[in-house]
Amino acid sequence: MFNNFLIIGCGLIGSSILKSSIKNKISKNIYIFEKSKKNRKTIRKINKKIKFISTLNEDLSKMNFIIVCTPMSEYKFVFSKLDRFVSEKSVITEVGSTKRNLLEFTKNKNLVLSHPIAGSEVSGPKFGNKDLFNNKWCILINKGITYKINLVKKFWKKLGSKVILMNAKEHDKIFAITSHLPHLIAYNLIKTAQDFQKIEKRNLIKYSAGGLRDFSRTAASNEIMWRDIFFNNKDNMINSINKFIQNLNFIKKKIRDKKDEEIKKILINSKKVRKQIIDSKQDVSKPDFGRQI
Amino acid sequence: MFNNFLIIGCGLIGSSILKSSIKNKISKNIYIFEKSKKNRKTIRKINKKIKFISTLNEDLSKMNFIIVCTPMSEYKFVFSKLDRFVSEKSVITEVGSTKRNLLEFTKNKNLVLSHPIAGSEVSGPKFGNKDLFNNKWCILINKGITYKINLVKKFWKKLGSKVILMNAKEHDKIFAITSHLPHLIAYNLIKTAQDFQKIEKRNLIKYSAGGLRDFSRTAASNEIMWRDIFFNNKDNMINSINKFIQNLNFIKKKIRDKKDEEIKKILINSKKVRKQIIDSKQDVSKPDFGRQI
Repeated sequence: MFNNFLIIGCGLIGSSILKSSIKNKISKNIYIFEKSKKNRKTIRKINKKIKFISTLNEDLSKMNFIIVCTPMSEYKFVFSKLDRFVSEKSVITEVGSTKRNLLEFTKNKNLVLSHPIAGSEVSGPKFGNKDLFNNKWCILINKGITYKINLVKKFWKKLGSKVILMNAKEHDKIFAITSHLPHLIAYNLIKTAQDFQKIEKRNLIKYSAGGLRDFSRTAASNEIMWRDIFFNNKDNMINSINKFIQNLNFIKKKIRDKKDEEIKKILINSKKVRKQIIDSKQDVSKPDFGRQI
Repeated sequence: MFNNFLIIGCGLIGSSILKSSIKNKISKNIYIFEKSKKNRKTIRKINKKIKFISTLNEDLSKMNFIIVCTPMSEYKFVFSKLDRFVSEKSVITEVGSTKRNLLEFTKNKNLVLSHPIAGSEVSGPKFGNKDLFNNKWCILINKGITYKINLVKKFWKKLGSKVILMNAKEHDKIFAITSHLPHLIAYNLIKTAQDFQKIEKRNLIKYSAGGLRDFSRTAASNEIMWRDIFFNNKDNMINSINKFIQNLNFIKKKIRDKKDEEIKKILINSKKVRKQIIDSKQDVSKPDFGRQI
């Protein structure tokens, strides 16, 4: 597809793109810009032909395709370099989890915003996974030069993704509900359990198999990435937190008053969502009895 | 261990006890009382030697060991029969997820309260699992006749469980946090997503892989069982919901004001819980990239 392909930031997502790109023969040469020495050491073991670049300078001009996979809080620095050195013929994309905040960077005519819906609670290149994007959705933001959007689309499809276009505002609203709120709720639940442990001076951990355990996995996600997401999608976060609290107060009252039919209706209703999720192949129906220890 | 063993209510937990009891040679004869014709048909296929009883009557007097695995809302009916017909030499136990509300039944001198910390989002005997209790905690409530408590302890150990004793009040407080609140939160999150779908007239499901999906599994749990739990542990539920909302409002403010260090601290802190959970072998450290579809 390309002669010179550059990945800026090579953590979990960057290294998964790297591995998948090698597998799918995306580029003749693959360049990596990665600040962490420890990460570079891990990446070197993936493939000997990977070329490292240590500064973002005029060498950027030879790149055909650049993907930014750093935390969003580093975009300001990264794009100051990209705006300056990247050739007009190149295409740049990135993988940030919020989009409205990134529109300012799209003054760069090379840029197309994308968001692969894939990840894990772990971070760093040692967990890079060549099949991470396989059969997963990747959202492209429909803003920018058409042929560049099409090239980015082709790139993600080569990595196995299903691509869909939407606008940045829509994206941030949807993912506030399907991803950002769930993560915040998981963090908040763990915090509530920690508070309880402190007050009661009692270790809850060995009883966590009854539900808490599964939330703890989500709440072990990378703190820099999630801080960036929560801050960048602030308005939608606050709005969805408020709706969540409204609902929780509603359910609390129904429990207090033992409103049998109303509680049952709420509990039955969520099975519908589960069914939709399985029907749309976002999860398997196989029951979960806890992961094998 | 026994001559005559009776399981009352044979859904997911009852049928898992049944299968594990067969495997571990718990009793010469195993009797089942199960109201649902469909369930009985499924159970019959498990083992031909299982004997069904269709009414709870004087035949109960021949049972050495009885375990009640119905929803807690049926205990009133079940114990009216057990109190009447069960011999003084028998031992009765049950598997309800809340305990304080069951103390009234312990006027029955045969009864020992237990709570195996095992389950799944699915229900019914077709999901019965002979290894469900293997290496899982089972809580016994330290109230009743010592030798009967010891027998129940022996029973659960035979099924592979690790047994721990505590009092009913302690139990309900701990599990409000480690199990009941997480489930309620999962239900509430799905409700919030459903509300959003209705208002925005937009299907979110295909984007659920970013977090919502995992909550939907928990929120697909049996509605009768969970209604009973929420109602029976009402005070602890209300208390923990209030603490949860307090924390959520706190985090919301930190997001609104972009309090960098404070948010990072909260997010980093939950990794500690994750580490404890893995160290205490309640989960594996293997990263989760989504279940294979």
